[in-house]
Amino acid sequence: MRLTFLGTGSTSAPPLFGCECAVCKAARAVISMRRKPASALIEAGETRFIIDAGLHELGDKFPSGSFAAILLTHFHPDHVQGLFPMRWGVGDAVKVYCPPDNEGCADLFKNPGILKFEQVHKFETFTIGDVRVTPVPLIHSKPTLGYCVDDGATRIAYLTDTIGLPPATLDFLTRWRPTDLVLDCSYPPRELPKNHNDFTLALKTIADVAPDQAYLTHIGHELDAWLLAHPDALPRGVVIARDSMAI
Amino acid sequence: MRLTFLGTGSTSAPPLFGCECAVCKAARAVISMRRKPASALIEAGETRFIIDAGLHELGDKFPSGSFAAILLTHFHPDHVQGLFPMRWGVGDAVKVYCPPDNEGCADLFKNPGILKFEQVHKFETFTIGDVRVTPVPLIHSKPTLGYCVDDGATRIAYLTDTIGLPPATLDFLTRWRPTDLVLDCSYPPRELPKNHNDFTLALKTIADVAPDQAYLTHIGHELDAWLLAHPDALPRGVVIARDSMAI
Repeated sequence: MRLTFLGTGSTSAPPLFGCECAVCKAARAVISMRRKPASALIEAGETRFIIDAGLHELGDKFPSGSFAAILLTHFHPDHVQGLFPMRWGVGDAVKVYCPPDNEGCADLFKNPGILKFEQVHKFETFTIGDVRVTPVPLIHSKPTLGYCVDDGATRIAYLTDTIGLPPATLDFLTRWRPTDLVLDCSYPPRELPKNHNDFTLALKTIADVAPDQAYLTHIGHELDAWLLAHPDALPRGVVIARDSMAI
Repeated sequence: MRLTFLGTGSTSAPPLFGCECAVCKAARAVISMRRKPASALIEAGETRFIIDAGLHELGDKFPSGSFAAILLTHFHPDHVQGLFPMRWGVGDAVKVYCPPDNEGCADLFKNPGILKFEQVHKFETFTIGDVRVTPVPLIHSKPTLGYCVDDGATRIAYLTDTIGLPPATLDFLTRWRPTDLVLDCSYPPRELPKNHNDFTLALKTIADVAPDQAYLTHIGHELDAWLLAHPDALPRGVVIARDSMAI
């Protein structure tokens, strides 16, 4: 099974509008310093699906029929905005698994077009091809699910957006034992992180879950700047994800 | 005064997700056949502002401080989605004039960030720099305003999205006498157009308003295909707009 990071940015990802910090200035010039909205592609044999739809060019990048489904973590614009144009497409329906959130985002439920939304529920495993997917609840400002993906050989937990983990999710993960943990880490260490992990809380969560390997994603420009100033901050087994990186 | 079409597409603009028509297939290969979401840049002397914010890359294309304001015609995603990332920027506030619509789009009003929304009202003229702007009501599925822009030399009416015109707007335009009319024309001739002009209704509206020159915008792939099959359909004084075209 392969996971490719399509985007690793938070809503404050470089280059941030109006920001003149060193990281944002560099990201305007150097495309590889940019971070698109956090999302990922999962590939296991013939099975191919996408977690989150924040990429504006989602429909261009993944033509109709090239993927089995889209899994939404939650209905904030930076996780669903690629669906706004895609829904008006023609041909086969696009299956979109999503958390129970009757509000959705903008008029997606009112005008779904070719999208077929299907709510999934915490700890109720479903399958896409040969891959087993278990949604787990996260802690965020909207109903949000992480996805635990198991192809029989590798177990990847993709957990964003979240601040810490609910006890039931931590309990599940301790038993499920992910080989790879992908985790929200929007901020450098800060006093009172809100809605998202800061670096300190992300490392604590990784220690609690104890995966073989952890990847930080949903990253803002301040964390990128802080990491440049603290190059030794990352413990063994923890990596900062980059757009297009595959694991 | 110069108007540059930043985008001239409807939600069914080529290339449409899943569509294999000749126009959409061509648009996947040839960038100049594509149409971005309908929007425009107005420049008059030192004054520079943007009508509609549907461009995903709006903040990249127009850095902080490079424009005076954004005017929204209405709160559908394809007219506001560029604001989703821009709002989390830093530095100077971004002024956004908009129609009275307390629903807005998604969580833009709940989390406006650096955006400063200011409702404007039909037939109440306001100024941006030396340019006079008069909002006029349109007929659409959301509260929608067209904008009549006058720099003292040229009078441009930018009217999208709309199906026909309310009598009061037609009455205003007949007296105001636009030199240039930019008009919604989403579809080829069809039985019962909905929410947007088809080609027939657009031509009738242009005849009623009688501008010096008219430009059709907010164009879908079906209209592009129909125009290829009917190359003589456009009467004198009416042009199909193209992305990046300036008038």
